[in-house]
This record gives sequence, C-alpha cells and structure tokens, in this order.
Amino acid sequence: MPSHQQSSSAALPSSPVRLMAVEGPNQPAPSAELDRLYRHFEAEMLVPLWTEISGLMPPSPTSDAVPHLWRWERLYEAAAKSGELVEVGRGGERRAIALANPGLGGQPYATPTLWAAIQYLNAGEGAPVHRHSQHAFRFVLEGEGVATVVDGDAITMRRGDFLPQAGWHWHSHINDSDQPMAWIDGLDIPFQRYADTTFFEPGPDVADRPDVVPERSRSERLWGHPGLRPLTQPGAHRATPLLNYRWEHTDAALAAQLDLEARGHDVTIEPGHAAIRYINPTDGADVLPTMRAEFHRLAPGARTAPGQEVGSAVCQVFAGSGRVEVGGTGWEVQPGDLFVVPSWAVVSIEADDGLDLFRFSDSPIIEKLGLTAHLPTGTC
Amino acid sequence: MPSHQQSSSAALPSSPVRLMAVEGPNQPAPSAELDRLYRHFEAEMLVPLWTEISGLMPPSPTSDAVPHLWRWERLYEAAAKSGELVEVGRGGERRAIALANPGLGGQPYATPTLWAAIQYLNAGEGAPVHRHSQHAFRFVLEGEGVATVVDGDAITMRRGDFLPQAGWHWHSHINDSDQPMAWIDGLDIPFQRYADTTFFEPGPDVADRPDVVPERSRSERLWGHPGLRPLTQPGAHRATPLLNYRWEHTDAALAAQLDLEARGHDVTIEPGHAAIRYINPTDGADVLPTMRAEFHRLAPGARTAPGQEVGSAVCQVFAGSGRVEVGGTGWEVQPGDLFVVPSWAVVSIEADDGLDLFRFSDSPIIEKLGLTAHLPTGTC
Amino acid sequence: MPSHQQSSSAALPSSPVRLMAVEGPNQPAPSAELDRLYRHFEAEMLVPLWTEISGLMPPSPTSDAVPHLWRWERLYEAAAKSGELVEVGRGGERRAIALANPGLGGQPYATPTLWAAIQYLNAGEGAPVHRHSQHAFRFVLEGEGVATVVDGDAITMRRGDFLPQAGWHWHSHINDSDQPMAWIDGLDIPFQRYADTTFFEPGPDVADRPDVVPERSRSERLWGHPGLRPLTQPGAHRATPLLNYRWEHTDAALAAQLDLEARGHDVTIEPGHAAIRYINPTDGADVLPTMRAEFHRLAPGARTAPGQEVGSAVCQVFAGSGRVEVGGTGWEVQPGDLFVVPSWAVVSIEADDGLDLFRFSDSPIIEKLGLTAHLPTGTC
Amino acid sequence: MPSHQQSSSAALPSSPVRLMAVEGPNQPAPSAELDRLYRHFEAEMLVPLWTEISGLMPPSPTSDAVPHLWRWERLYEAAAKSGELVEVGRGGERRAIALANPGLGGQPYATPTLWAAIQYLNAGEGAPVHRHSQHAFRFVLEGEGVATVVDGDAITMRRGDFLPQAGWHWHSHINDSDQPMAWIDGLDIPFQRYADTTFFEPGPDVADRPDVVPERSRSERLWGHPGLRPLTQPGAHRATPLLNYRWEHTDAALAAQLDLEARGHDVTIEPGHAAIRYINPTDGADVLPTMRAEFHRLAPGARTAPGQEVGSAVCQVFAGSGRVEVGGTGWEVQPGDLFVVPSWAVVSIEADDGLDLFRFSDSPIIEKLGLTAHLPTGTC
Repeated sequence: MPSHQQSSSAALPSSPVRLMAVEGPNQPAPSAELDRLYRHFEAEMLVPLWTEISGLMPPSPTSDAVPHLWRWERLYEAAAKSGELVEVGRGGERRAIALANPGLGGQPYATPTLWAAIQYLNAGEGAPVHRHSQHAFRFVLEGEGVATVVDGDAITMRRGDFLPQAGWHWHSHINDSDQPMAWIDGLDIPFQRYADTTFFEPGPDVADRPDVVPERSRSERLWGHPGLRPLTQPGAHRATPLLNYRWEHTDAALAAQLDLEARGHDVTIEPGHAAIRYINPTDGADVLPTMRAEFHRLAPGARTAPGQEVGSAVCQVFAGSGRVEVGGTGWEVQPGDLFVVPSWAVVSIEADDGLDLFRFSDSPIIEKLGLTAHLPTGTC
Repeated sequence: MPSHQQSSSAALPSSPVRLMAVEGPNQPAPSAELDRLYRHFEAEMLVPLWTEISGLMPPSPTSDAVPHLWRWERLYEAAAKSGELVEVGRGGERRAIALANPGLGGQPYATPTLWAAIQYLNAGEGAPVHRHSQHAFRFVLEGEGVATVVDGDAITMRRGDFLPQAGWHWHSHINDSDQPMAWIDGLDIPFQRYADTTFFEPGPDVADRPDVVPERSRSERLWGHPGLRPLTQPGAHRATPLLNYRWEHTDAALAAQLDLEARGHDVTIEPGHAAIRYINPTDGADVLPTMRAEFHRLAPGARTAPGQEVGSAVCQVFAGSGRVEVGGTGWEVQPGDLFVVPSWAVVSIEADDGLDLFRFSDSPIIEKLGLTAHLPTGTC
Repeated sequence: MPSHQQSSSAALPSSPVRLMAVEGPNQPAPSAELDRLYRHFEAEMLVPLWTEISGLMPPSPTSDAVPHLWRWERLYEAAAKSGELVEVGRGGERRAIALANPGLGGQPYATPTLWAAIQYLNAGEGAPVHRHSQHAFRFVLEGEGVATVVDGDAITMRRGDFLPQAGWHWHSHINDSDQPMAWIDGLDIPFQRYADTTFFEPGPDVADRPDVVPERSRSERLWGHPGLRPLTQPGAHRATPLLNYRWEHTDAALAAQLDLEARGHDVTIEPGHAAIRYINPTDGADVLPTMRAEFHRLAPGARTAPGQEVGSAVCQVFAGSGRVEVGGTGWEVQPGDLFVVPSWAVVSIEADDGLDLFRFSDSPIIEKLGLTAHLPTGTC
Repeated sequence: MPSHQQSSSAALPSSPVRLMAVEGPNQPAPSAELDRLYRHFEAEMLVPLWTEISGLMPPSPTSDAVPHLWRWERLYEAAAKSGELVEVGRGGERRAIALANPGLGGQPYATPTLWAAIQYLNAGEGAPVHRHSQHAFRFVLEGEGVATVVDGDAITMRRGDFLPQAGWHWHSHINDSDQPMAWIDGLDIPFQRYADTTFFEPGPDVADRPDVVPERSRSERLWGHPGLRPLTQPGAHRATPLLNYRWEHTDAALAAQLDLEARGHDVTIEPGHAAIRYINPTDGADVLPTMRAEFHRLAPGARTAPGQEVGSAVCQVFAGSGRVEVGGTGWEVQPGDLFVVPSWAVVSIEADDGLDLFRFSDSPIIEKLGLTAHLPTGTC
C-alpha cells in the first residue's frame, strides 16, 4: 500500500543535482538571487538547459568512449590464467572477460552499446544453460573443440566461424576436447542495460550435452543453402535462424570479390577492399536486431579511404597485419588484436601482406531509428 | 600524425577499472593469485563477467531511474523566476528547465532516454533559430501567445495542443503577446547523447518572426485533413509533417470513444479508459522516430488495471484529478503535475471526477529493435 | 473418384488452339511439314511463341481498352428507367449498371481491372446484405438520403463524399428518404474475376436498417481525426477503417493547396493543379488494396501537362467544365461525365472556369508488384 | 489534334454489348419496355449487374482454366521437330512452345496469369539479345550445354538448376555444345499482357557470346554464399540477384529435411513431404515480383493431404513417379510431365518410389494484394 505523498521530494534528503553559478558566455550573471534559484532547482530535482547544453548537444558526436586496442596475446593470457583460478558454472555463468573502454569509467563496455569479451573453456568443461534478452554472437579466431548448444542444437565452433544467437534462446557451451579453447563473445549488454530491457532466466545447472555433436548443425542443414528456405518457415524471423556462418563460405565470398575486381568488375568497396555482411536469410537484414557483423579483406598493400560513421564498432584482426588509425591514434596490428571505433571517429586501415578483419557494430540501432538522415558513412 | 603505440595502454597512468576479490556465491575464492589477476585485469582494461553479472543481467529490468513526481506550481514558479534572471538567446538557446530523475545522478534526464522540461518565454521574447538531430515536441498545458516557427512555418500554440518536430529542422519560438507563456518540451536528448548521435547547428541569432502568424499553419493546411494527403508527397516521411495536433481534435476523439463505449461498442482500452495515439499521417506510425505520444482520458471514477511495460515514460496530468501509483509510490495528482514511469514499473491510475493525461515514452526505440518479443504490455 | 487418364488430351474432341502457317518476316516458311507440326501443336494444346510474340510482347503497353466517355445525363436516365423496371433484391443484389469499355468485347468492365457503375435506389428501398472479396467504394456526385450500412455502422452519403469499403465486410444500402438517389460504385470485379480470387456470401435478404442513422458514423467518430488513432487499434489494417471521406475535408484540402500556391509555396502538382490522395490512416497507403482514389482540382484556365502511366484509371468530373484528351480522343466535359484512361494512354486536361475531378485507378496493383521500375508517371 | 465529340458513342457503329431479357429468378420480367432499356444499354455501352452477377461474383473461385497435363515426351518431340523447321532469331526471338490451357480459348496461357513453355536450342545456336518487362525463369529437367547470358554474365544450365531472371535485363541464350538442349521457361506474360504493363526492347541481333563460359557465374560468386551479402549492395533488390540456384543445393536441402524428420524434428510440411522455396537473398521474399518457385520432395509412399489455394500454379515432375489429382482429374505421372492447378482446385499427390516436383505459381500477386485474408491454403 503506497503512502500518498503530498510533497514529492520529501524522500530526498540530499539531491544529486549540483549547480553552480559561474561567469561565462551565455550564462546568467552570478548573484545571490541566481544562487537561491539554483538551490531551489537542486531541491526540486531540476536542471537548466543553459548550464548543460554544450555537453548535451555538441555540434557533432563526442563520445566518452575512446579509441583503444587490446593485444590478443595479453587477452589470451588473462583468460588462460582465469581458466586456472575461476570455475565456470551457475551464477557466474561464463568465464568471460570483457574489454573495458578507458573512457567509460571502468564499466565492462567496449563502447557505450557493445560488449566484447574473450570467453575461455577448459577441456571437458561445460557452461550452464541460460537464456537472456540480450543478443549475442561468438567469433572464433583460433582453436576448436567447443560446441555451443542452442535450443538443443549442437553447433561446432571452428576457426573463422561466426555464430549469432538471438535473445531468449536457451544455450550452453561444451568443450568435449582435450584442449582449452577461447573465442570472442559480442553482446548488446550495455545497450540493454541502458535501455532497461534486460531479462534473464537460468536453465539446468549443467550444460546441454547431446550424445553426438554432428558435423553440421540442424540450423545449418535447414538454413545453410544459398537462396533456399524451408517451406515450413515462410515468414521473417526477428533474428537469423542460421546459427553458424562457416569460414569456408566467408573466405570464398571475399576471394571471389577480389578475383572479380581483378577481372574488371566493380564489386568491391574500394580498390583491394572486399567485404561481406552477415545477414538473416529470412529477410536479408542484419543477423541480430541490435548488432551488425561484417568481414573485411584488404589485399596486400591496400588501404581504406578515411571514413567515419555514427555509431560505434569493435574490430578484431583475423589474419595478416597492417596499420590502423582511429580518431588520431594509430597501431600496428597483428592477428587477434581487438580495437574499438567510437561514434564519428575517423578510421583508416592499411594492409601489409593482406589483412582480414572481423567487425561488429551497433548500426542496426542507428539505422532502424533513422538517426543519420543526412550524413556520410565510412568503414571500419 | 598519429604515433604508433607498441603498448596500447601506455597512455593510461591509472585505470578506471577497479576490481576486488570477495567471498561470495559464484565468486572465485580470494587469494593472492586472484588478486594478482584482478590487478592485471585493471592494467589491461578488462572486467570479468562473473563479478558484474547480477547488475548487468538481472532477471527483469531494474532501472536506475525511480518513480518521481514534480508539481506544476513549483515548476512554473521556478520557470517564472528564471524568466527574471536568465536571458534567452544564442548559446543558452532556450530558457528550459529539465526534470532530473533522482536515480540518475543529477543528470537532466527524466528517464534514461527522455528529456522533459518546462520552457518559459516572456512577453515579446524570441528564442534563436537552431536545428539539431534530437527529436522534440511541445505540449501546452495552459496559456497562449507563443508561436513556434519551423522552417519558416509559424504555428500557434494553445491549450491542449501537441506539436511534434523532427530532428534537423530549423526552428525558433516567438512570444508576440503581452504575457509570458510556459509549456512542456519533450526530447530524446538523453538517448542521443548516450548513443553518440548528436548534431547541432545554430542558425540566425534571432528568432524567425514572420509578418503575420496565421490562425492555421502551412503544415496543418497541407496535412491536417483526416485520411487525405497531398499528391505531391506520396511517400512515407521519417517523422510527421503535421506540426500541430490541435486540442479540439484530441478532445473530440476521446469524447467519441467514451460515447461509443456508452452505446455498447468495444472501442476503449478498458472500461472508462479512452486513449489516442498521435501518429505520422504518412505511415500511421509514431509521430517521431524515437518517441511515442498519447493522450488518455479516464471517465469519472474509472481506474486502470495495473500494467507494466518495457521502456520508460513521462506523463503530465492535463485536467482533472485522481491518484497515480508507480512502482509502489503513490500520489494525488492535479493538473500540470508530471511524473515518470521507469521501465517495468507497475502503474495504476484512478480518476476522481475524470482525469486527462498526456503521455510520452521511448516505445519506438523498444519496438523497432524488437526488444520485447514475449512480454505483456500495460499502460501509463 | 477420378479416372486416371493415360492420354491427357483424350477429353478434347476439338482443340481451341488454331494455328496457321503464313508467309511473313520471322515466320518459318509454310510447308506441308510445318502444317503437320501446327496440327500436332493444336492436338497437344501447344502454341509457339513465334506466331504470337508481337501481340503478347509489344514494345510498350497496347491496351485492348479504348478511351471512352459516358455522359452523366444519359447514365442517370438509364438508371432511373431501371428504377422503374427492375427490382432491387437478393440475387440481382444491386440496381447497378456498369460502364462497358468498347474495346473489351461487351464485358461490363470499364478497364481490364476496374468496374465502374451507377447505382440507383428508389425512395424507401433497401439493397440486401452481402459480402464479397471484391473491394468497393461509392462516390457521390449529387443527391442524398441514402446510407450504406457496413458491419452495422450506418454511414450517410452526401455530395462529394467518398466511401471506401474493403472486401469481405457485410454491407447493405438503404434509402430512407422520399427521393431516389444515384451514385457511382467502383470495384475491382474485373481483376478479381481474372485472377480467380472471388468469394461471395449473401447475408439476410433485407437491408440492415438501424433505428437511427446518426449524422456521423461510428467509423468516422473513431478514425476521422487528423493524425490520431484509437489506442485499441495500433497496427496497420489492410484497408482503411475510415468509411466516409467527407466532402468538406476534401474541398478544404484542395482550396488550401491553391491558396498556398498563390502565396508562393510549392505544394501543387503543377501550376493551378491541386490534388489529394485518399489514404488509409493506419499506414498512409492507398485506401484499398487494389484501388487508388484521388481528387484533383484545376484552377480556372489551368491545364495539365500531358502525362501517361502504366495501369488504367476511371475519372468522373465532379464540378466545372473543360476539355479532356485521352490517347488522342478529346471531349468537352461537364459534371458527372465519366471517362476511362487505358494503360499508357497520354492524358491532358484543361479547365474552363475550374474543374474538379474524382479519379480512381489500379495503381496499387501496378506498384505493389513493382511493374514500373524505370518509367515516367503522369496524371489523370 | 483530336476532334472533340459531342456524342461519346458516335464512333461505335455496332456495340459489342449484347443483352437479352430472359425469364428467370432475380431477373426483371421480360417486356417491350425492358427490351427497349436493354437496347439503350447496348447503345450506351452499359451492362447491368443483375444479368452478370452469377458469373462475375461466384461463391468461390471458378476458374476458366482447367486441370490439364502435358506429357514430356510429346512436348520434347514437338520441340525437336520445331528445331528442324523453325529458325531461332530476331523477331521470333526464341524457339519456345507454350502450354495452352484448354479452358482459355486457345491462348498460349497455362493459367490466366502464367506462361509455361519448352524452349529448344540446337547445337551451336544462339538466341538474340533482348529485354522485356516480363519476369522469367528457366528450369532444367535434363541435358546441358546451354548458357544463358544476363547482362554479360554467362550462366551454365544443368539438370535441376533453377535460373530466375527479373524483368528488363538484357539476355540471350547460347548452345556451344554439340547437342541440342531443351528446358522449361516460366514467365508472367499472361499477367503483364492482361494488366497492360508490357515493355519490350530488342538488343543486338545475335547472342552475347563471352570468350569463356566460367564454371560459376559472376552472380553466383557474388550472391551464392549462404547468409552473406556483398557490402556494396546493402539494400533490397526487387528480384533476386542470384541467377542460378544449383541442383546440388536444392537436393541437399530436401535430403536434410527428410533426414531431420527421420530423427524426430518437425521440419517437413507433412510426413514425408519436404519442400523449399527459392528466395531472393536480399530480402528473403520470392525470387521474382510476380512468381513463386518451390521444389517439393515426397518420400517413397508419401502422399499429400488434399489442399487448395487461391491463385494458380504449374508443376513439373522432376524425378520419380506417382499419382496426381487436380480438381477431380487424376494422372499417373512420370519425369518431365507438366500439369496446371487452377485457382481453388483441390490437389493431392502420391509418390511411388519417391517423387520430386518443381512448382511455380502466381502467389506473390495474390499475397501482395492481400486477396486471401481469411482462407485456408494448401500445396501443389
């Protein structure tokens, strides 16, 4: 039974609002009266626009997130050490270690909207079954032996594979090999936490272990045929029903683009720059409602034109080496290195002897909400 | 010219990441080794999932925002006092005072996604021309004399009028009367600041003052006819081209629903509860890409069933009185009172002699991203 | 129990296929052997492309339908005479007399896809209840006293009103006045007959007569408010739920366009040519799935640029007079005159002292199927 | 310069309208006066509803098209004979022989909307370049050696391949082998002729012969990867950009469905009945704007439940044998046999030792226009 409050602010002993009258352009002249007004604002949980507008409404996006790069060998080392010290199981749920953008106050957020983590599973281990509203994917840089099991469908994970998984599906991971394995998880955890849309439900405390992990999952057998769909599922799914995008297809598609370019066809993004987008076969749109995933291949010596876009991205070098520059910060990159691209930061990439790059971003959020009506776009 | 850094964290003298090994269910046992690992995580800008999961992935949304109510007379008083002390003009741009949700750390955010403010313009004043990527609307509780001028189209603002205005249109406000006037502004400032999508451009330093402010704006003359569209504009607009939804139409639509209900037709949300949604006539969808706006009318003595929804809302009582309960907090409400409904908070409303309520929310964000595949919805 | 036939053509004593070997460009040389082949084709129910291609695949659309005009006074006279000789009731269902395009072999089709008829109801009469898959509308040139009753909602019909009615809704018509009344019916009967999609169900043998025919129908009270929708119906309807588009709104919208044009705003199709499209308020699209309806107003002395479009249309002069030219045939037109515009025929219209024109077409069929990817469009 | 006609019917020496007053239920009693009225109708190009309604608006679809089957060996024989007597080239354009439904008056229409033909190309021949608004596909029952060249992209045609080709693309066919080859063409010629939307343009008089016909066409190399799209083409195409759906994929998809069914998964249409739909990878919808294509596989002994749907279809047996019944007519079928399914005809199929069936239909027309709001659907 709620107590009906005559004063709405009675319950606020001290206000989190803090205002200070300062001399400055476009600011009212400090005075005792202004000071009284600001104290009144604080008591009433009010904040004026005129003291905040430069931070709230800048001329163009000025993200708190900063360009940053994580080296794969250090990430892997931290994960392997966690493999010794931390058990995987109910409660902690996963042995996943997230990239924390230095500009975001120590939160486990690669960008304001995106979560990127390395997950590590020892030989024989299993991560318990759960489901959540957050959308997720796995991307495999190296190793094999693990399968992810989604709604009872076991899907092997191998080098170069991309495994999207829409929210609210039961899933667990199992490592039935005799080697540990690590991979990258991407989720929209920061966005869903921000937007207050998070639901989570634990399943059985142990992983779902099928008797046999088949070479090709049920989802691949149903949906992994180019341009074909089962007649039993004629409509659009909100996220892709294809649960593994195998490396052999990605590799072939990129190789074909570069070969067709060499034969004079205009099929690449720019000279020497092939790229594919992973899509939901039921509607041709992004694989997940809130995240876009792509794979880029730069031919030896190719470089991208500098570009920028609204919305943030995370990239992982898959193979090759080169130089990346993001918002004025540059790195020499090697396989496995991960870097973030904050919204509106200018990016350019240059390959040594070729460079393969996996990329994911929050573009579906930006595009579905129509937030860039009149702006140029670039690439990761 | 960027300096290529061999160490990605060289620029980080002290990490914002702070981790502490604690005893607890599902936590690794504290040890010197774990401590070393956590220090390593801090240095490497890494955060494990297992220390954060309960906060990041709760069973259902647990918003930082709290239920809160602001009384109109106090808001108005604070705005009027600002009218004496603060000039309106370039830089500060508007004499707008925002509701700061007590749970959001003193930021000028009514909810994580929504801005709600009272704006106040003295007799004869004008607010300068600008445009921004943020979507906005005005809603008028009382008074008249002000016009908003959008791309040169002057639109009078009167009691009960709802004036949406899509991002990136030039606009200013003018008060050509001999009385001050206040109204409510709603914007998606918090969301666009969060998603790093904000663009802002100042126009002329003074307001756009047409020679004559016509009774009916150009936009209303083109788009304010039920079921008709100009043949010159056959496609969907990303936001409504109708710039004022006049009170007379809203009032008539609500009265008709209650009258039809009385004649036995099933046209209301629930007994005694009429409601309309303001829509974009070019596609029938929400008026703005990121914000939904509705008007609810409760007949004398009517009460709503308790309901909850994913996403947050702000409501203003327009007329009448009654009791509102949000997430266990209750208030007696009067005309002009504003209250916030955090995501997933249970709401119920009861009218005394009838209650008219204006409501806006971030539902388009939630719905376009498909974030509530399997959940019940309720009402404000 | 079907008899399994070894020969598929056993049941065909004589074939409808008739082929003749002729001398001609691109034709095989006549010979006894060719003749034998053509006889074989006939027996086997086969027709070669090479004898048919010029008719089947012309360089641009060559409709069998021809430009034609029907004078209102003669139509009305025929309808009134029918009012004396023909009863309205079950079986015949309606006292409707259809325009038969002279190019379509005497079928009651104004164009290959569209039905247009005058319907006539004597004082006191009622047309029985039925429903059908065909989409329909009424347009009122003159008179009043009749109401159409759709799913129990009685809707008065007055001069200038446009009443769309989606397929498969129960409906009847009643004339409770002491005068006969005539109006225009438009339906997609030819298209649905062609595509074999027709369903029909009779209801009660008598018309649905409510105790009182209200001034404003239920559908108008729910849906006739600009930019507002009942919250109980948030989704798109396949056809408009607004069942009368009153003349006062159409007239005001057209007058506003011409007035705004006079003030220097670019809101008309071309100088002196205002036009609105009737739309489904739930999605901004055409009122009916297969038919588009528009109203055009030419200012005194205005003339349209010659235009052509893929798909056919029927127009009725509502007020004023002028000259119309369709595919090389011209007429002086008066109120009530109806004319057809075959696909791809060039149209131009010139007003004397102003000309108001109602128009409907099969454009939704053409547009939804994407049949005009690369072609210019014009106007009726 | 048109002559403005005062009488609209001056140009009609004799009317195609023919009306006769007859005794009958729901018909006005014959009389001299009624006769005069009907003569007046004829002169004025008018037809009353009451004499036509039973044919125009039947209770459910009653197609003029009839169930019919064409035997492959006879079709092939007629085509081969044409290969001797008829040259392929400009004007006749293609050596294609169309199925003429016995109910459609000898027109080259398999159903009211669909064209189905056998096309035959001798060793070394080429069919000249042209483009047309009609959408088309090829389906290959047997043979190889021919390539279709679309916008310069040469695509080999082999057994089981399905090659859709959207309207208005330049195309030709070449047979560079030493054997003749025949295949099936499907087009929407009847629909586009009916709707008056046909455009046609000849290209060079000879076929487009690339130096080399690669194993895998450009379109397959760009678009033939499951769930991947080139980043250069991020939007929806109105028709599929994938120009060959190879048999190996179709076969694998069907085999997987039956295998998964055997393992207890609910993935087939009904027991023993696997089916895929060919889709446009850019949006997951049908491959062509007006035609749907599917492939069905019945396991040995399987039979379909009787079904019916609105809209018409054509099926070709690809492999196996069995019994088909359409609208009460039954046939024993063999590979290559083609049969038509008129709208609303009940179909059932039973396999002997398994039956593979290719099927195409006008379902996109029916569905995009929303013509079956409330009706059950079945299968071919």
